[in-house]
Amino acid sequence: MAIVVVGHKNPDTDTIASAIAVADLWTKRGMEAKPIAQGEIAPESAFVLEKFGFSAPEVVTDATDKQIILVDHTDLSQSMDNLEKGEIVAVVDHHKLGDVTTPNPLEMWVWPVGCTGTVIKAMYDFYGVEVPKNIAGILLCAILSDTVMFKSVTCTDADKKAVDELAKIAGVADVMALGMEMFKVKSAVDGASANELVFRDYKDFDMSGNKVGIGQLEVVDLSMLDSHKEGLQAEIEKVKADGRHSVFLLLTDIMKEGSEMLIASDDVSVVEKAFGKAPEGKSIWLEGVMSRKKQVAPNFIKAFEG
Amino acid sequence: MAIVVVGHKNPDTDTIASAIAVADLWTKRGMEAKPIAQGEIAPESAFVLEKFGFSAPEVVTDATDKQIILVDHTDLSQSMDNLEKGEIVAVVDHHKLGDVTTPNPLEMWVWPVGCTGTVIKAMYDFYGVEVPKNIAGILLCAILSDTVMFKSVTCTDADKKAVDELAKIAGVADVMALGMEMFKVKSAVDGASANELVFRDYKDFDMSGNKVGIGQLEVVDLSMLDSHKEGLQAEIEKVKADGRHSVFLLLTDIMKEGSEMLIASDDVSVVEKAFGKAPEGKSIWLEGVMSRKKQVAPNFIKAFEG
Ligand SMILES: [Mn+2]
Ligand SMILES: [Mn+2]
Repeated sequence: MAIVVVGHKNPDTDTIASAIAVADLWTKRGMEAKPIAQGEIAPESAFVLEKFGFSAPEVVTDATDKQIILVDHTDLSQSMDNLEKGEIVAVVDHHKLGDVTTPNPLEMWVWPVGCTGTVIKAMYDFYGVEVPKNIAGILLCAILSDTVMFKSVTCTDADKKAVDELAKIAGVADVMALGMEMFKVKSAVDGASANELVFRDYKDFDMSGNKVGIGQLEVVDLSMLDSHKEGLQAEIEKVKADGRHSVFLLLTDIMKEGSEMLIASDDVSVVEKAFGKAPEGKSIWLEGVMSRKKQVAPNFIKAFEG
Repeated sequence: MAIVVVGHKNPDTDTIASAIAVADLWTKRGMEAKPIAQGEIAPESAFVLEKFGFSAPEVVTDATDKQIILVDHTDLSQSMDNLEKGEIVAVVDHHKLGDVTTPNPLEMWVWPVGCTGTVIKAMYDFYGVEVPKNIAGILLCAILSDTVMFKSVTCTDADKKAVDELAKIAGVADVMALGMEMFKVKSAVDGASANELVFRDYKDFDMSGNKVGIGQLEVVDLSMLDSHKEGLQAEIEKVKADGRHSVFLLLTDIMKEGSEMLIASDDVSVVEKAFGKAPEGKSIWLEGVMSRKKQVAPNFIKAFEG
């Protein structure tokens, strides 16, 4: 049975592209592997896969009796059902180290860079395997997506270097034009329900025993969301009521380089603890904040600790 | 303040050599780092360090306010005190993934090979840093030690290849002769107390909520231990009485390629569950069993699960 390669729940472009690329690399290393996903892909990912000639990975959510490679996450809450009934043979990631553990030795490639795609590019080089042209294309898009076209504070020189090299392999002449095209697809909000928008890029965290959800919508212009805010606020209140301490929704303006955060919480004081600034009503403007992973989740984790 | 590089409690040669080598590599990558240890080094490690001109790393056990690189472990029970008050910036290991978590992204190099030293050799190559001659010597010894001169089931082709390359750099002509010399130092039991022998290479595990200790003594001939067995059995009973469900001591004959396991346990049935064979009295011969990590700990973990 082939090894399955899987990213986090509510898959983003990095999770999907990384699953496809790692499955390719492992297969070429002599260990047959296939990409899967824990859910339907988002419009941005669909655009990227179509552009480079891939179809969406099969949706599989149960790990029982499978050999598994995790990409783009190491948190149990973001991983497959019954993970302990499968065997994790490898991890490729760029996040904090989560609560996944294994009973057996495994292979792990984890770097503090902006995107799993950047790690995977280095792994192809390390193993002396050529990056296929179409895989270079989706990895390139994954890096542009995760680093918000190099503007995120999570972006490193390694990410920029990987994009340069991947663009040559993929034959992409204007990287930023491709990025803008991709972000316009991602930003599209019309026709989408509030529920779909909240969960488009959403993660649950365990913070000192409290279940806390953080979603993020990245748009090229915040005013695109004006008519949606009321509906989004009502939606996160509903999500919070379903057993969570708090749900936060980041509305990130990638051009202004900051985020408005909508708040649904049992105890709003965690927001001031996390950011040193009290919210006005149920929202707060966070200047310069673009990264959930580096600028938002760690602050809340600390705020919940004390 | 320099980053500290630290291996597991009750340091073995891999833990000590890896801390020294990773500190060298990080410093040469531009991030000053220094090796430390969580306790006094064992005679085998002292022999290796002296042979290649190193002194033992300073003993430090508290992680508060430190930047830390973990080598050769990812289990909280094997790591520094107050680990959550320090910041883990990297992990280099070859074990199962333990319960260490981090609030921030980090760099991880973990491979399913016989020794952390093998991973570190590859990292030097990856970063284009030359392995210093004396560091090649201690990494070589670490691999010979962890793989029991290539006889352990944990040994992989990558370990053998690393030893070949390191031997050239270190100018070691007869690798196996160096290994035998090292194992004779390790095997020396005369003059050592039972307590010192039990803890020479000892690890505590959490197994389904039970604290379980497993020690290992590797000798070139099991008969060397005949006059010590009674004292060792009494000692592990004492260690067990100090809040543990079980303590096992592997007496491994590296020439016969098997282990006699001494048993002190609240429920001896876990031994039969783990190995499909009932012990005779308080000990059992395990043919072909040489690796605590791969052949003993996983079996007990499963036995305790059900
Ligand atoms: Mn990612
Ligand atoms: Mn080791």
